[in-house]
Amino acid sequence: MASSTAVEQPSVAGQYAPTERTVPTRARERASYDRESVHAILDAGYVCHLGFVRDGAPVVLPTLYGRIGERLYVHGSTGSRPLRAAGEAGDAGIAVCVTVTHVDGLVLARSAFHHSLNYRSVVVHGTARRVTDKAELTAALDALVDQVVPGRAADSRPASAKELAATAVLCLDLDEVSAKTRVGGPSDDAEDLALPYWSGVVPVTTTYGAPVPADDLAPGIPVPAYLTGLAGS
Amino acid sequence: MASSTAVEQPSVAGQYAPTERTVPTRARERASYDRESVHAILDAGYVCHLGFVRDGAPVVLPTLYGRIGERLYVHGSTGSRPLRAAGEAGDAGIAVCVTVTHVDGLVLARSAFHHSLNYRSVVVHGTARRVTDKAELTAALDALVDQVVPGRAADSRPASAKELAATAVLCLDLDEVSAKTRVGGPSDDAEDLALPYWSGVVPVTTTYGAPVPADDLAPGIPVPAYLTGLAGS
Repeated sequence: MASSTAVEQPSVAGQYAPTERTVPTRARERASYDRESVHAILDAGYVCHLGFVRDGAPVVLPTLYGRIGERLYVHGSTGSRPLRAAGEAGDAGIAVCVTVTHVDGLVLARSAFHHSLNYRSVVVHGTARRVTDKAELTAALDALVDQVVPGRAADSRPASAKELAATAVLCLDLDEVSAKTRVGGPSDDAEDLALPYWSGVVPVTTTYGAPVPADDLAPGIPVPAYLTGLAGS
Repeated sequence: MASSTAVEQPSVAGQYAPTERTVPTRARERASYDRESVHAILDAGYVCHLGFVRDGAPVVLPTLYGRIGERLYVHGSTGSRPLRAAGEAGDAGIAVCVTVTHVDGLVLARSAFHHSLNYRSVVVHGTARRVTDKAELTAALDALVDQVVPGRAADSRPASAKELAATAVLCLDLDEVSAKTRVGGPSDDAEDLALPYWSGVVPVTTTYGAPVPADDLAPGIPVPAYLTGLAGS
C-alpha cells in the first residue's frame, strides 16, 4: 500500500509526522500527533476496532490489542478473515486502520445541533503483518493479556506451542497515527445562552465490578491484587 | 457495491438473512441474526465505528448514530471525508461497515490463551447514502440526540435551516446485519482447572456521573429528569 504524503515537516521528537490522511478536514484543533498523548489513549484501553478491505468493501471488527513500544499487536480471534488475508499476503501485509475510542462525557448544548461527546480517540493507519516469529508471538500474547489486566500475563499459564500456533496476531507499527480529543463544556451560540434548556456535561466512565470467581475455581485462591485495584478504579 | 450472496434461506420473520460476510468463520455459536437482539444492542449505545474505503485503504472513525426502525443514521461530524464521498456518490452511495460494541466483562482464564471478553456487538454492512431530504434530516438529528439521551431532542432548540444544511448524516438500512455476543465464565481446558491461578469474570459497566452544569447556565434551570435517571443507571 502506498503511504500517504506528509503534509507538514517530517517527524520531530515526540511527535508522529502528520500525513494527508491523519490531518482532519474539520476540528483540527482537536487533533494531536504527540507520542505521549497517543500512548496514553492506547494504554487506557484494550478494545480496538480493526478495519480492513475485503472484496472492495470495508469491514470493521472489534478485537483486543496490546502495545509494545511503537508497535501495536491486534488479536485475530474475532477476525480470522483479515488474519488469513494477512497470512496469505506474507511480508507485503494488508492495509488496516485501527481505531481506539474512549467516551468521557455527554455534552448537552441548548441547541440540538451543538450536542457532542467528550472523547479521546486514536486512529492508526498502516500495513499489518501476521506475527510468525515464536518469541514475538509469545511477547504479543503477553501484551494482549496485560493490556486488559496489567500484571495478569505473569499470573496465568503461558501458551503452549500448540496454542501459540493457533494464536493469530497482527502487528502494526505506530507510524501514521493521530489522536483526537474533545474536552470541556458545550459550545452554544451566544444567542442561545438564555434559552431555558439545561446545558452541561454528563461524565461517562468505565467501571469494574467485584470479580466473580469461576464456578469451578479451586478453593483457597484469593482475588489477586491486580484485580482489587481495578475494581477500585 | 454488489451485495453478498445469501448462504442460508432468505429472511424469516424476526431475523436478518445471513450472508457470506455476516457468517463468522469462527465461533459461529456467538452469532445471531435476530432483529430484537440486534436492536437491543444498537439501542444500548450511541457511538459506532464507521468504516469506509478511501484510496483503496480502510478508514475507521468513531461517530454517533441513531436508529429509526430498520434504518441507521450516522453522524458525519468526525468524518466529513466519507460524507463528502457519499454526497458525490449521490444515489449510488458508498460502501460502509458500521460496528457497535459493548464490553460487559473481562474473562480471566487460567491459561493466557483462553483469556477473553464478554461483549455484545453488531456489525452492519451496506451502502450508505447522504440524507438530503429536510424532513428526514430533522428526524435523523432528533434520533442522534435521543440515542445519546432519550428525551433530550424535545428539550433542546431544534436545528435551524442553516444548521440542518450544515448537518451531514449518512443513512444505512439494517439489512445485512449480525450480532455477536459472549457471555459467561472462562472456558479453561480440563487439565488447567487445578492450576493455582484465580479465574473468573470482572464485570465492566458504563457509569454516568452527576451532571455538571455549563459555566454559563442560567440560574434556576434544574437537572432534567431524563439525566437524573441516567446517573442512577
